[in-house]
Amino acid sequence: MDKPESNNNIMNGVGSNVKKVIENSKTERYSDIMLRALAFILTFISAVVVGVDKETQMVSFTLVKTLPPLHVPVTAKWQYMSAFMYLLVSDVIACAYAGVSWAYCMAKPKLNNRLELVMTLVDLTMMGLLFSATGAAMAIGVLGMNGNSHVQWHKVCNVFGDFCRQFAAGLVLSLLGSFAFLLLVVLAVFNLYKRSR
Amino acid sequence: MDKPESNNNIMNGVGSNVKKVIENSKTERYSDIMLRALAFILTFISAVVVGVDKETQMVSFTLVKTLPPLHVPVTAKWQYMSAFMYLLVSDVIACAYAGVSWAYCMAKPKLNNRLELVMTLVDLTMMGLLFSATGAAMAIGVLGMNGNSHVQWHKVCNVFGDFCRQFAAGLVLSLLGSFAFLLLVVLAVFNLYKRSR
Repeated sequence: MDKPESNNNIMNGVGSNVKKVIENSKTERYSDIMLRALAFILTFISAVVVGVDKETQMVSFTLVKTLPPLHVPVTAKWQYMSAFMYLLVSDVIACAYAGVSWAYCMAKPKLNNRLELVMTLVDLTMMGLLFSATGAAMAIGVLGMNGNSHVQWHKVCNVFGDFCRQFAAGLVLSLLGSFAFLLLVVLAVFNLYKRSR
Repeated sequence: MDKPESNNNIMNGVGSNVKKVIENSKTERYSDIMLRALAFILTFISAVVVGVDKETQMVSFTLVKTLPPLHVPVTAKWQYMSAFMYLLVSDVIACAYAGVSWAYCMAKPKLNNRLELVMTLVDLTMMGLLFSATGAAMAIGVLGMNGNSHVQWHKVCNVFGDFCRQFAAGLVLSLLGSFAFLLLVVLAVFNLYKRSR
């Protein structure tokens, strides 16, 4: 009478372990899908916010002291600064990849191990690209806000306040997007670590 | 007579597999140590090159048109630009971590699995930090070389040529250092993937 009971116990133990593994793998999958969705949404909104950011202001120039100053319309937009272009292009690339990989992960119930590895490496590349682009845009943003007296680069955010505020919002979104990619890599490393034990 | 022979064959097969695993793990270890050494050397030289970069030039200013121009000594150094400070601080942090982790990996023949995981996560953080800092410094470098007519920020590398060249060298070294950290993460992901199969 004892043997079947102990067998049952063992089987129950195996069953609960299998259940736990399936639950863990489900949690990993949901976290991955959520992070991909987040990365997609953040980089998409950032690209739109930066892409449509434009402000025109009337700026006065004094050509000759005896004549009244000239009022000229001056426009600020992302096309005028290479670091802003870099941010927008990086946002678009990361957004496109995040969108495709998100849709793929949603459609497939279980990913091939090799494909998972390739996706982790692309996530890592996107993370590097976005960190580099946000760093570049932030450096120009700081100059635009404060200027730099040593090289006589004057601040411009006192004139183009709305442009700067909108750009800062886009920059923060892009930075959050790069952290979403960082978390995707961390999640993949944790999962591989758990499976390798 | 057949049985011991087949057992021997099996044992030989197991032996060759074990040998392969040990060889693979040795190659992984050497690659990891080499990449850590590379990251340390690159970020160290970059920090020194950027840290000692300084140039003074006599720049002429015209205060009143009827008087001859004033010649004033103007100095360029990393302390004058926040993006350059960010690069130097990031280089120093990454260099210190790469040095410590390199020495530790050299001293220990086999790392604890959990410590390996923690090191991979710190490598990833260092990679993000360096990519962000090199992006920021590169954005300012491009401005220094070309200027930007839209915001009236004039180029400065025509005056401080030596400073710019030395800084560009430091920046390239730091960028290579960030790629060394990227490769460290790629290597760790590959190793975990191989072990998880």
